[in-house]
Amino acid sequence: MDRIPILRMGDFLLVTIQVDMHDRLVVALQEDLSERVVATGARGVLIDISALEVVDSFIGRMIGQIAGVSAILDARTVVVGMSPAVAITLVELGMSLPGVRTGLNVDKGMAILRASLGPSREGVGDAASDPQG
Amino acid sequence: MDRIPILRMGDFLLVTIQVDMHDRLVVALQEDLSERVVATGARGVLIDISALEVVDSFIGRMIGQIAGVSAILDARTVVVGMSPAVAITLVELGMSLPGVRTGLNVDKGMAILRASLGPSREGVGDAASDPQG
Repeated sequence: MDRIPILRMGDFLLVTIQVDMHDRLVVALQEDLSERVVATGARGVLIDISALEVVDSFIGRMIGQIAGVSAILDARTVVVGMSPAVAITLVELGMSLPGVRTGLNVDKGMAILRASLGPSREGVGDAASDPQG
Repeated sequence: MDRIPILRMGDFLLVTIQVDMHDRLVVALQEDLSERVVATGARGVLIDISALEVVDSFIGRMIGQIAGVSAILDARTVVVGMSPAVAITLVELGMSLPGVRTGLNVDKGMAILRASLGPSREGVGDAASDPQG
């Protein structure tokens, strides 16, 4: 497995990190993701890290870089599914992930993206009806 | 990594198969998924296999079993992201995947699930506006 699948969901792209990330896989993911953002005109990128039990500065930098590239390509990045242990580790590592929003789960992440895009986007439903999102 | 993450998206659950499936992982996935279907009241399960380049009868049976369990729990299963090579292999293996719908991608899979549930479900948006879905 040398590619991480990127799923399109309407205006957004979803990436689920499940495997241990090594250098080559990260580079491939960044390339694939930026190409898909351009090809699909996606307005948001959701990165699900619920499968990650530990995180290090390498993963932190990867997320930051993906968010940076996506922002230049006019897509916002939301990281979802972060476990408490991962959040604590990121703070201890001094990684504040600038430019990255976080949501507890995919539903809330999509709600954040929809809210940040405003109500005028066409074709976007109101599936996430949680007012606390 | 001994668990495959299950993502909730509104009324549906999404599973992305990225890693090689061994026996224990399949059992864990089936248990987790059936528990999540019951806990969330999910009406549909999307299984994304776009990362699979090859498939064997083991994977085919796994998908069939997941669909069977989900059906008993009142959730429909849609397999999305199947590559042409995988489709050919499944047919050659004689696995017709009874009870499993397929969609080209997640968007179309969600459209299939929404259509099969009918228009009366509350909280389900119309994000998939593709009339050909």
